[in-house]
Amino acid sequence: MAMTASALKERSLLGLKDLSGAEINWILDRAAYWNSQKEKVVPILKDRFISNMFFENSTRTRFSFEMAEKRLGAEVLNFTAASSSVEKGESIYDTVRTLESMGIDAGVIRLKPIGVLEEIAEKVSIPLINAGDGNNEHPTQALLDVYTMRKHFGELKGLKVSIIGDIKHSRVARSNLWALQKLGAQVKFCAPDSMKAPELERHAPYVTIDEAMSSDVVMMLRVQLERHEGGFMNSAVEYRQNYGMTEERARNLSPHAIIMHPAPVNRNVEIDDSVVEHQQSRIFKQMENGVPIRMAVMERAMKH
Amino acid sequence: MAMTASALKERSLLGLKDLSGAEINWILDRAAYWNSQKEKVVPILKDRFISNMFFENSTRTRFSFEMAEKRLGAEVLNFTAASSSVEKGESIYDTVRTLESMGIDAGVIRLKPIGVLEEIAEKVSIPLINAGDGNNEHPTQALLDVYTMRKHFGELKGLKVSIIGDIKHSRVARSNLWALQKLGAQVKFCAPDSMKAPELERHAPYVTIDEAMSSDVVMMLRVQLERHEGGFMNSAVEYRQNYGMTEERARNLSPHAIIMHPAPVNRNVEIDDSVVEHQQSRIFKQMENGVPIRMAVMERAMKH
Amino acid sequence: MAMTASALKERSLLGLKDLSGAEINWILDRAAYWNSQKEKVVPILKDRFISNMFFENSTRTRFSFEMAEKRLGAEVLNFTAASSSVEKGESIYDTVRTLESMGIDAGVIRLKPIGVLEEIAEKVSIPLINAGDGNNEHPTQALLDVYTMRKHFGELKGLKVSIIGDIKHSRVARSNLWALQKLGAQVKFCAPDSMKAPELERHAPYVTIDEAMSSDVVMMLRVQLERHEGGFMNSAVEYRQNYGMTEERARNLSPHAIIMHPAPVNRNVEIDDSVVEHQQSRIFKQMENGVPIRMAVMERAMKH
Repeated sequence: MAMTASALKERSLLGLKDLSGAEINWILDRAAYWNSQKEKVVPILKDRFISNMFFENSTRTRFSFEMAEKRLGAEVLNFTAASSSVEKGESIYDTVRTLESMGIDAGVIRLKPIGVLEEIAEKVSIPLINAGDGNNEHPTQALLDVYTMRKHFGELKGLKVSIIGDIKHSRVARSNLWALQKLGAQVKFCAPDSMKAPELERHAPYVTIDEAMSSDVVMMLRVQLERHEGGFMNSAVEYRQNYGMTEERARNLSPHAIIMHPAPVNRNVEIDDSVVEHQQSRIFKQMENGVPIRMAVMERAMKH
Repeated sequence: MAMTASALKERSLLGLKDLSGAEINWILDRAAYWNSQKEKVVPILKDRFISNMFFENSTRTRFSFEMAEKRLGAEVLNFTAASSSVEKGESIYDTVRTLESMGIDAGVIRLKPIGVLEEIAEKVSIPLINAGDGNNEHPTQALLDVYTMRKHFGELKGLKVSIIGDIKHSRVARSNLWALQKLGAQVKFCAPDSMKAPELERHAPYVTIDEAMSSDVVMMLRVQLERHEGGFMNSAVEYRQNYGMTEERARNLSPHAIIMHPAPVNRNVEIDDSVVEHQQSRIFKQMENGVPIRMAVMERAMKH
Repeated sequence: MAMTASALKERSLLGLKDLSGAEINWILDRAAYWNSQKEKVVPILKDRFISNMFFENSTRTRFSFEMAEKRLGAEVLNFTAASSSVEKGESIYDTVRTLESMGIDAGVIRLKPIGVLEEIAEKVSIPLINAGDGNNEHPTQALLDVYTMRKHFGELKGLKVSIIGDIKHSRVARSNLWALQKLGAQVKFCAPDSMKAPELERHAPYVTIDEAMSSDVVMMLRVQLERHEGGFMNSAVEYRQNYGMTEERARNLSPHAIIMHPAPVNRNVEIDDSVVEHQQSRIFKQMENGVPIRMAVMERAMKH
């Protein structure tokens, strides 16, 4: 039952920054395996208990994990904190330790405070999966993103990927950056000044919207306009004009390029309504791919 | 996996207005079959995934669907929107499409906006079950109501049914109207002017409370007094006097008549406290019958 | 299916006040049995439906019951009332009767109003388990507490147990008092005047904090400071000084003594941060023991 600290570390998934390209590829390969399965439920995790602990609410991500877990035959216990209360790290730790004491075999955690997850992982002896922590990482989202790209292009090496929008507050951007660079892709950012993350400038260049739109993959981020009140972005209209995937910009993409978005989309802000289900959009495909990715991640965490 | 649009339509249950009497009877017969089963769980839907998507909260209806789904062996994923936020049609569509992408095999949906469910059903390729949409329809409620009547009276043809209360805002009244008329029952409405639905007047007459009380079935609707502030109904007391199933009115019912209510009851408003579990009341029986009805509806939606 | 009223009473667990020492010991023995099981899931409750009805929110207690129920193979349906609304007894009764009508085989209930649970238990015909009712009882918490003590000390007879804190509002204190005295332990209370329960004075003496700290078991209660505004306790700092398990007090405990707390802990109020995982603390052990205790309680409630 008890694992060594290093064995545990290899089962947890706190972020992609410290994962090797080989480890990422193993997950992508297993996702492809799960995706190819005809059987909806393959109970390799029968009688194992997983808790989805969402200290920050997210219907879609929780749902995707729950699908993955149940398709592997696991018992699932959900916990969602009241969306209003932001819990402190200490109280999050107490909850995780409590659920561990009660006998869960792995935990999926989403939380706001940064750095807390690492601290907790040091202290507990079950694998923990990061389902999004503040603006730090969202590893399973980036894994499903690179899986979606690999499925479409066959290969990530040399692929040009633009990530457009609120880089500063985006864990999706960060996790994608780490994964894509390890796999040989070339990342560019595009953002208004107020949404730039200065500490990432040495990892990837900021380019103009026109250059960003010329990539093989154009990934739009969700704007949380409420975060930027008082910044130069005074309207969703202006954001759309300067950084949105408008119908016109979609028309001018390379024919082989694909449009991505982690969802939920603010229609007519980041992406025009008519472009969401555009033939070059992979938005719902991404959601579909989230399930086999999370099956692979949970398999890695829990398989003997 | 992919169904033709018409096959899908036959599996979905968006309302009773467009269902034939034969289709309704099939569901009632299957409910009777499930009701007669000794085994609590008959896993004909093993390894099939159903999502209960409640964009409008309802513990009882969600619970009844969940019981039905689990008694058929299905995997159930629940989703309840924060009761405070009323989601727009577009965002409801995105959520349903997302869950469809993640691999659910059928969806049960409750939502506020009218017309949205039909639009969504056109665009997705899984069966959808209406668990209540605005004041439009609540088909499984009406099915369990007519099932309860059929069980008691043997036959619906010629049965006199009064529906009393807030007809205007009631999806229960509408779904019952359509079902009952298709099965040959005779529907009467009774409501204060502010709670009448003018567009339904050509379908069923409005009668006095005394005439309404003389029917074989007296169905009381839930009053949502908060909706009627400023109307002529300025108090629950007055409502009870004019339209409630008081002890006195219950005493004067035909001995063979039954009292129904979709619950939850406002005790001493629509129905006197002591009448809720009156010998002629079928209120808890209705809830009991909801489970086999929903088993039949999910079987119809998902059985190969 | 239908049980006699007395058979039902023997299966329900509304409190420990009316249980015999023999009945309590049977539950502790069965918990020890479940604790010794290697298999995580032993499906003696397969195809049986349990509803966890939390009219007062509690992630930990609900989670512990859910683990126990699923380890016995039961189907679990959760229901949590919005934390904001305090439901009236009547409406709680209607919900329980509704879920009973829908076919659940047992119900776990947490609720605020006192006395309501007994009334409901008289009227329904399924076993009910009290998961905390107002400041009356919290029987499974006290059972896991005495189980934890018995595991550590082997025997409860003659054991000195101090319960420190808000006795007045504590169902945990009450349930522990009844259980401990039936099993031959000696209970002492310690509390500021505003937190004393006068009606319990004839059952156990109030002692000074120094005397309380000299017991074999020192059980700290959770303070809900919001309840005591305007009382003489004007600060958490003052509470800690006068009644908290500070580092200093922990150092001065008997070496064989243990520290307990029902959790969640207000760190640095009832217990100093560094003492929560002290070698003499059994706090997370208590949570661990909650699962086999609740397995035993559900087994007692539902086994044929």
